[in-house]
Amino acid sequence: MAVVGVVGAEVLIPLAALIGIAFAVFQWFVVSRVKVPAAAAAASAVAAAAAAEEDAAKARLRTAESEVAEVVEDSEEAGVDYGRVEAKCAQIQDAISIGATSFLLTEYRYLAVFTAAFAAVIFVFLGSAAKFSTQPSPCPSDPSRTCKPTLANAGFSTLAFLLGALTSVMSGYVGMRVATYANARTALEARRGVGLAFVVAFRSGAAMGFMLASSALLVLYIAVNLFGVYYGDDWEGLYEAITGYGLGGSSMALFGRVGGGIYTKAADVGADLVGKVERNIPEDDPRNPAVIADNVGDNVGDIAGMGSDLFGSYAESSCAALFVASISSFGVEHNMAAMMYPLLISAMGIVVCMVTTFVATDFVEVKEVRDVGPALKRQILVSTVLMTAGIAAVSFLVLPHRFTLFDFGRVKVVRNWELFICVSAGLWAGLIIGYVTEYFTSNAYRPVQSVANSCRTGAATNVIFGLAVGYKSVIIPIFAIASAIYASFRLASSYGIALSALGMLSTIATGLTIDAYGPISDNAGGIAEMSGMPPNVRERTDALDAAGNTTAAIGKGFAIGSAALVSLALFGAYVSRAGVRAVDALSPKVYVGLLVGAMLPYWFSAMTMRSVGSAALKMVEEVRRQFEVIPGLMEGNAVPDYATCVKISTDASLREMVAPGALVVLSPLVAGTLFGTEALAGLLAGALVSGVQVAISASNSGGAWDNAKKYIEAGASEKARALGPKGSDAHKAAVIGDTIGDPLKDTSGPSLNILIKLMAVEALVFAPFFAAHGGVVFNHL
Amino acid sequence: MAVVGVVGAEVLIPLAALIGIAFAVFQWFVVSRVKVPAAAAAASAVAAAAAAEEDAAKARLRTAESEVAEVVEDSEEAGVDYGRVEAKCAQIQDAISIGATSFLLTEYRYLAVFTAAFAAVIFVFLGSAAKFSTQPSPCPSDPSRTCKPTLANAGFSTLAFLLGALTSVMSGYVGMRVATYANARTALEARRGVGLAFVVAFRSGAAMGFMLASSALLVLYIAVNLFGVYYGDDWEGLYEAITGYGLGGSSMALFGRVGGGIYTKAADVGADLVGKVERNIPEDDPRNPAVIADNVGDNVGDIAGMGSDLFGSYAESSCAALFVASISSFGVEHNMAAMMYPLLISAMGIVVCMVTTFVATDFVEVKEVRDVGPALKRQILVSTVLMTAGIAAVSFLVLPHRFTLFDFGRVKVVRNWELFICVSAGLWAGLIIGYVTEYFTSNAYRPVQSVANSCRTGAATNVIFGLAVGYKSVIIPIFAIASAIYASFRLASSYGIALSALGMLSTIATGLTIDAYGPISDNAGGIAEMSGMPPNVRERTDALDAAGNTTAAIGKGFAIGSAALVSLALFGAYVSRAGVRAVDALSPKVYVGLLVGAMLPYWFSAMTMRSVGSAALKMVEEVRRQFEVIPGLMEGNAVPDYATCVKISTDASLREMVAPGALVVLSPLVAGTLFGTEALAGLLAGALVSGVQVAISASNSGGAWDNAKKYIEAGASEKARALGPKGSDAHKAAVIGDTIGDPLKDTSGPSLNILIKLMAVEALVFAPFFAAHGGVVFNHL
Repeated sequence: MAVVGVVGAEVLIPLAALIGIAFAVFQWFVVSRVKVPAAAAAASAVAAAAAAEEDAAKARLRTAESEVAEVVEDSEEAGVDYGRVEAKCAQIQDAISIGATSFLLTEYRYLAVFTAAFAAVIFVFLGSAAKFSTQPSPCPSDPSRTCKPTLANAGFSTLAFLLGALTSVMSGYVGMRVATYANARTALEARRGVGLAFVVAFRSGAAMGFMLASSALLVLYIAVNLFGVYYGDDWEGLYEAITGYGLGGSSMALFGRVGGGIYTKAADVGADLVGKVERNIPEDDPRNPAVIADNVGDNVGDIAGMGSDLFGSYAESSCAALFVASISSFGVEHNMAAMMYPLLISAMGIVVCMVTTFVATDFVEVKEVRDVGPALKRQILVSTVLMTAGIAAVSFLVLPHRFTLFDFGRVKVVRNWELFICVSAGLWAGLIIGYVTEYFTSNAYRPVQSVANSCRTGAATNVIFGLAVGYKSVIIPIFAIASAIYASFRLASSYGIALSALGMLSTIATGLTIDAYGPISDNAGGIAEMSGMPPNVRERTDALDAAGNTTAAIGKGFAIGSAALVSLALFGAYVSRAGVRAVDALSPKVYVGLLVGAMLPYWFSAMTMRSVGSAALKMVEEVRRQFEVIPGLMEGNAVPDYATCVKISTDASLREMVAPGALVVLSPLVAGTLFGTEALAGLLAGALVSGVQVAISASNSGGAWDNAKKYIEAGASEKARALGPKGSDAHKAAVIGDTIGDPLKDTSGPSLNILIKLMAVEALVFAPFFAAHGGVVFNHL
Repeated sequence: MAVVGVVGAEVLIPLAALIGIAFAVFQWFVVSRVKVPAAAAAASAVAAAAAAEEDAAKARLRTAESEVAEVVEDSEEAGVDYGRVEAKCAQIQDAISIGATSFLLTEYRYLAVFTAAFAAVIFVFLGSAAKFSTQPSPCPSDPSRTCKPTLANAGFSTLAFLLGALTSVMSGYVGMRVATYANARTALEARRGVGLAFVVAFRSGAAMGFMLASSALLVLYIAVNLFGVYYGDDWEGLYEAITGYGLGGSSMALFGRVGGGIYTKAADVGADLVGKVERNIPEDDPRNPAVIADNVGDNVGDIAGMGSDLFGSYAESSCAALFVASISSFGVEHNMAAMMYPLLISAMGIVVCMVTTFVATDFVEVKEVRDVGPALKRQILVSTVLMTAGIAAVSFLVLPHRFTLFDFGRVKVVRNWELFICVSAGLWAGLIIGYVTEYFTSNAYRPVQSVANSCRTGAATNVIFGLAVGYKSVIIPIFAIASAIYASFRLASSYGIALSALGMLSTIATGLTIDAYGPISDNAGGIAEMSGMPPNVRERTDALDAAGNTTAAIGKGFAIGSAALVSLALFGAYVSRAGVRAVDALSPKVYVGLLVGAMLPYWFSAMTMRSVGSAALKMVEEVRRQFEVIPGLMEGNAVPDYATCVKISTDASLREMVAPGALVVLSPLVAGTLFGTEALAGLLAGALVSGVQVAISASNSGGAWDNAKKYIEAGASEKARALGPKGSDAHKAAVIGDTIGDPLKDTSGPSLNILIKLMAVEALVFAPFFAAHGGVVFNHL
């Protein structure tokens, strides 16, 4: 039997989580030593905004903006007065932070309403599966045993859902706070050198990454233990209820990604179309009225949205693994240590990622601009290699040598080394996806360079080549995911898939670190530009940002890869729970489900693309209007009205997130209720296999266009210089491609992860209801 | 039993086919009464080119071009000399016809090599399934009976393949000849009025449509009867061998679509990027060196490629229906009339479409520009309504009241009215797809208008909106296809699906008529422009062309819708033949197949998009070079070198069609041989459900961009005029969108139909081999 006993698992998991949290706080502390003069005032303003009502926050935002504006007016004076620059940085940071906080708090008010309503739906649907019975019932997997009453499961599922939603929201919020705290500090450090600035941005990313990964684990651990007090020996009911945690996490993530994505891209596209294309002013120029909204957007979309998204993936893969394990011999024989294997993997991941962090901050120093990309890439490689050893340790110490799984009714004997392979397969598939994504989106390689080269003949060929690159970038990741799926499915059925997903996410702390690093650097660049720092500082922040673009693409690759695995694991769990015997494509119900499911990502993307387009149109008109009616704005003698642009983005994102959100949330409910469990299984499989492709290609096309533009701007090689400089025809074509890519890579693409995950976890949570009452239409045909 | 006996079926089918061919010849005869003065010379030149070697043809092409060029030189002279204009028309037509013929003949030489090689593969693989046995073997579906030797099946399958390939190539070639015969005649008639020009273009389309539909039916009918002489009572072997006909049709169609698509779009994109965007000269201006290549491309891509494509769909759905029927009680009890039901439906379709044609040419006259669109749309509606009655007649007269199907091992009793519903479901789903496509791609409705409106803020928003429209246009067609699938699958299993596909294709003659009408009008516009006809003539041809854009989109909608149904039918037949018991998404093999299959359309699109992009880059550079080095070209005093541009398109398309072709042809072979029948089933299902979405969205995004541009150019409303005129910023943005859409709608999108069909029919043909020897890798794991 296992060497490490129950006590070990019970101690090691919370310990690792607490250490992770402490490590995050430590990183934050190190970052905070970079002083921003007005930081105290800024912090108090943020706190005030957080506490106050929205209107009050808006008023403060306006004040902060006019402060920025005053500073901007002065920035024309030659020479760089450092005291002044620092003050400006603080004020801009203040404006961004207040804007982001105000938006998130407003968004959360909407989400609170949705959460309450959906919690009620969960309770009523699940309760009604056995007519709100308060009597103990036979267990679904083994009717000879007795499980807790259905009503209790409904109640605890709802509770887990609320807990997941809350943790998700907190993850996003904390990430945003860290990022808006770090952006000005990164810009200020960039004056002293690229290495120092890199470390600040990196540590801030780590603060977010470790805080999120650790608290996600801790909350889940506590929930399992607290729920266990009631459930006692009924592990099946316990872990069925716990799946609500994943649903809560992903449903918040959906709105976070969609709302945040629309916010940031409406602002970004609007700012670029008028600023860069029509007025020929640089990115992040303070004269551009949409510039504050753009920077706020990076924090609410790329930081808060992404944080919620990865939290959701993590929560879901853990829940899926736990749920499937609960009906294996682990659960039946109440082997607590083996049962906790998924959480132990995550705990080990936190420790491994911590060690990996030191490589970037202490062991290998970033001295020059060209060290930045490799330093980030090294993080992924090192964490993967170390984690492989970590998985081996956990697998061989904790798991029994052999045990049994219930594989859709059949008993399957599994050995501990087989689970080691499952987890590792996911981990290494993630690494492959990361490297392939880098190849297709970094301007150091041929694909992006050929996209840039196609700008010679204009925007049309640029778009054609960029789409082709995005399509092509799908091939290897799909083979990587398929291999991981085949290996782990074959070795340990859907438990293997869930572990594979967990394996890919086991280095989530590192993934989040380098992912959050991107928007922080982007913001830092914006602040450097707006506060009038000298060009060499801006060059450094640009280099940090270009590396960040690629890591953002890598992060999206991880997110979609893990989403694919997670969804499949949830799909397997759903099929088990709903009692579907086969998802046979030769059954018309399943086939039609497949076809319609494969269509959903397109429907969803149509909505989100259109939303960004419409909001951007409004933004463009507002920015144009301001340039026309505000005298002296173009010359830098007048102050743009930042608040109106912030309001356009806010209103658009809150209004437009409803329809795509409803599509995702309602599709499984409608399909399951009206057409039954088999049709829903088809729908899930279809959405998964089609959505993955759309998401990867959208993210990578967008990343390629973005970096093709940066390649031309940077002019680092003979070929690149032949296409430039900024403002040349080729560069203008590149800007058009970049703008098209914005909603693809930051709104539609990453939201699709959540579409496929959320539908799957929702199906799983509602499975008892669908099994009891689903298929109204076909039952009457 | 059936009222109409075997003799009825045996007489009616060839009779309808022969009447259809006669009708096609009649239409051609009517068109030929429009005299083109140099037509005799041109025709002899074409005949010479067809017979002569490629080099000789090229020399002639050069001569023809220089004749055109001489004429162009003169065209600056004011006043329109009609004798002269007619001569010019004839010469331009000559140049286009020679170019198209020369390209097709070269392409066919490459295809001959492929066909020979692939025929050998078929023979060897199928023969090896039972070790080239010449002994009679037990029948696959009923081992108590004896069927013909495997080697005979291999031989006849190969023969059917060759027959299908030949018919496909003939279909494409005849279509091209008709179109290049009709284009100048349409332009000439446009001088006399839009109604007359419409009728010429329409009759030419009908000549192609009826020739193709009728000869496809006739050849299939003859093949069935000839093969029957050998097979006698072994219907199972007979119809298994006949499926090779579909494979031959689709494999030629693949290269026709891909090669033709790359040809036409390289020329089109290249011509537009320099001509319209940089040089500000109109479309089809004779000064543009790529203009002849562009017009040739319309004929080899949109006409020949599309003809082969729809022939392939028709052949495959017939083969699938016949194959499935052969193992039903029709086949077992040797009920010849019932067995011939699929062919009788097609025969009825030819008669119905003939009647429908008179509505456009005789009953309802096209008097004005705005009558053109409705006249074409009316064709679809009328043919659908009449065909519904036709299906009822055939179903209730020919079929027994009840009979049995073998539904994956189970016996299923089916009634004749159920088959009526299956066929009708496909027919009406086609109508819905057609109307929805029209809504999303015609500039009379909101979607295209909103895309046009987004051009106000530049090319980026135009592209974002256009992509969103394409995505959105997928929703209703998918529900329509899904409903048809569910109904027919449920009523008559995979036989129902095959019939549903045949139902959608039963009005193929009408579909091809209005589809071919488009490129003919497009060419007519080009000839009108190049021959210097007055602007009012060009306006008329533009109106014909705009309606043609929409019908082209509708045609693509039909093609993809029918491809989805056909592939599913073939999939069902494959699963039966390969002995796969379930295509269960819970099996890792199937699931991995699904995922990888769903990726193939992206891989394929990446290749084709990139090919068009690269070829267009070369074309742009050549056109730019000519404008720079040829003095007086821009002023119209010099002759461009058309031949070099033709050569660039030719070389690019022949070279670039190899890789995507290989991907499609090899994928099923590799998957089946290495990973077995189940994995291949997953692959087919994945490619189908994902490919349909990509194809529809690509076609409709492209159509929407094209017509958004035309909407701005036409300036028919207050709003449209606010965006124009030609050359405004909004118009330039629209041109960029149009250019991006070109490869999407004319290369990648339509080729995807063939990808999904060809893979499915190939799997079916090779099923005996895979069942015997497939799955090498998994067998050893």
